[in-house]
Amino acid sequence: MKPNLSTVLLDHGAGGRAAHELVARVFLKHLAGQNGSSLEDSAVLDFPPGRLAFTTDSFVVTPLFFPGGDIGDLAVNGTVNDLVMRGARPLYLSAGFILEEGLPIDTLDRIVASMARAADRAGVRVVAGDTKVVPKGAADRVFINTAGVGVVPDGREISASRAKPGDRILISGTLGDHGLAVLCQRSGLELDTPIVSDTASLAGLVERLIVIGQGDIHVLRDPTRGGLGTTLNEIAQSSGVGMLLYEDRLPVRPEVRGACDILGLDPLYVANEGKVIVIAAAGAAEALLAALKADDLGRDAALIGEVTDVRPGQVFLRTMIGGTRVVDMLTGEQLPRIC
Amino acid sequence: MKPNLSTVLLDHGAGGRAAHELVARVFLKHLAGQNGSSLEDSAVLDFPPGRLAFTTDSFVVTPLFFPGGDIGDLAVNGTVNDLVMRGARPLYLSAGFILEEGLPIDTLDRIVASMARAADRAGVRVVAGDTKVVPKGAADRVFINTAGVGVVPDGREISASRAKPGDRILISGTLGDHGLAVLCQRSGLELDTPIVSDTASLAGLVERLIVIGQGDIHVLRDPTRGGLGTTLNEIAQSSGVGMLLYEDRLPVRPEVRGACDILGLDPLYVANEGKVIVIAAAGAAEALLAALKADDLGRDAALIGEVTDVRPGQVFLRTMIGGTRVVDMLTGEQLPRIC
Repeated sequence: MKPNLSTVLLDHGAGGRAAHELVARVFLKHLAGQNGSSLEDSAVLDFPPGRLAFTTDSFVVTPLFFPGGDIGDLAVNGTVNDLVMRGARPLYLSAGFILEEGLPIDTLDRIVASMARAADRAGVRVVAGDTKVVPKGAADRVFINTAGVGVVPDGREISASRAKPGDRILISGTLGDHGLAVLCQRSGLELDTPIVSDTASLAGLVERLIVIGQGDIHVLRDPTRGGLGTTLNEIAQSSGVGMLLYEDRLPVRPEVRGACDILGLDPLYVANEGKVIVIAAAGAAEALLAALKADDLGRDAALIGEVTDVRPGQVFLRTMIGGTRVVDMLTGEQLPRIC
Repeated sequence: MKPNLSTVLLDHGAGGRAAHELVARVFLKHLAGQNGSSLEDSAVLDFPPGRLAFTTDSFVVTPLFFPGGDIGDLAVNGTVNDLVMRGARPLYLSAGFILEEGLPIDTLDRIVASMARAADRAGVRVVAGDTKVVPKGAADRVFINTAGVGVVPDGREISASRAKPGDRILISGTLGDHGLAVLCQRSGLELDTPIVSDTASLAGLVERLIVIGQGDIHVLRDPTRGGLGTTLNEIAQSSGVGMLLYEDRLPVRPEVRGACDILGLDPLYVANEGKVIVIAAAGAAEALLAALKADDLGRDAALIGEVTDVRPGQVFLRTMIGGTRVVDMLTGEQLPRIC
């Protein structure tokens, strides 16, 4: 890479000398300590005893940088959290970049630096990578795919299909922060109190919860795309149970509520990127709520509902004025490129 | 998904009901038997004793369909082969799709069906997936990322850093078939003998080679982007050795040679997607070559060179007329979107 080279060229994706230089100057600069196999076709790694958790997510968020985060830390935290939701300890990530010709190298550098910091915080190593470059106009700046591998210690059985009538439903914090942070930035909506994305690794918090909850934690899910409403519907269907939410307990920041009003959105369906739904036996709910509240990432945690045997597969909301309405999956909303 | 719905909509990427319907109607239709965790955040899987191999690759090839393959089987075979090159037995794949709004559902269906067939042939399961949809113009139809996990049985130490002076260099077949198949299709170049991509899983062939070669196989690499020339340079640098190739032994189909002449390309630098470079101790070379030739995928295999201690990090070609020239890494070529 010539010293004055400031944008991504098609050559950087051709697998030759330019590609090697981009890897050295940007990727290995930030991820070098993590990646021992830059010239191999695969990384070969130790795997501790236990089952393998495996997941993938692509990130196409726009704008690339938003209050509280960017596409880089989002791509790390999103995949780490998907591992964590099965009770896995996250170990390794891969990162696949699709770059548009002409992307400023500085932009890529900022994103990769952010990924490296997020990986450090989450305790995972980025061990495999790939870069493709497409001609100008064939992609929008940068898309990132991360896949993740973790180990599920024996005895942990956490799954969307394990909710049981009588279980309590907890949420680790306020709803809609990530989605609204991105939408406000994109639309230029200026608020007195800016909304900040909640993107964060939940690895540490969830590991502590599992130790406290032992076998009483039945389901863990992070309500990302589709929001809390859609995710609870998925769990209700997978487990064959009903659910009742208490509207007055749903934690929503006033500024998020205000922005939702302006934009015509329901915080129940807006994406979160650093929140976990915990569904656990009733007897464990109080201890888990206390553990959540004791954690920086769970300060606004709340017990928001219960699992029932009424109308399996459906989620109901007991409204503030005492009525009950169905909470359906997200339909007909078009909020593309939130993550 | 309404019965008459024929194109991908932004809604299909929003994580709500439409996304679920797309998953059911297209992804689970073809990959259902493979995927036991469609509503979970991660798949949880058995992992046999051994080290973990982990790799990722994104695919942005255009056209999506070309003689001998398409973006779907390419995405499966490419990642399977990257696992195999470390001596791993491939086990599981993830698949992340980035779709452009307006993509015909039929096109997606053909691609996913092709992925399923390729996974069956390679003996891997697609166990995790993700779909994002971006507005028209923000991506070109469909990009696919696959990540792969395999197990490396104890005792296998195959790496780009293990080539030794005196080793022999074998290639499993003809050079440049994939790249030229895509380029001819894209450019509308019509040949008397159409060029067909070599995309294929090398899992079976390589497993047989490893059994025959035992510890005598030092390096396995598939010469994809950048071609044989670039890949051998990478190995020479990683291993700190020189290499000498014999031009008269390089297998190239006449139609590929002809198309390369027309397009101004060197088959040494054109991508292959179903070929393996084997670098092994001299004493094992004959048995490995025989094993290659006995396999459908290795019919045109050849012993093409040797590892030397001359000029470590450099690759030389002994030309047909008896001279010697340096084979450098690919530089300055712009052949985007070959894979």
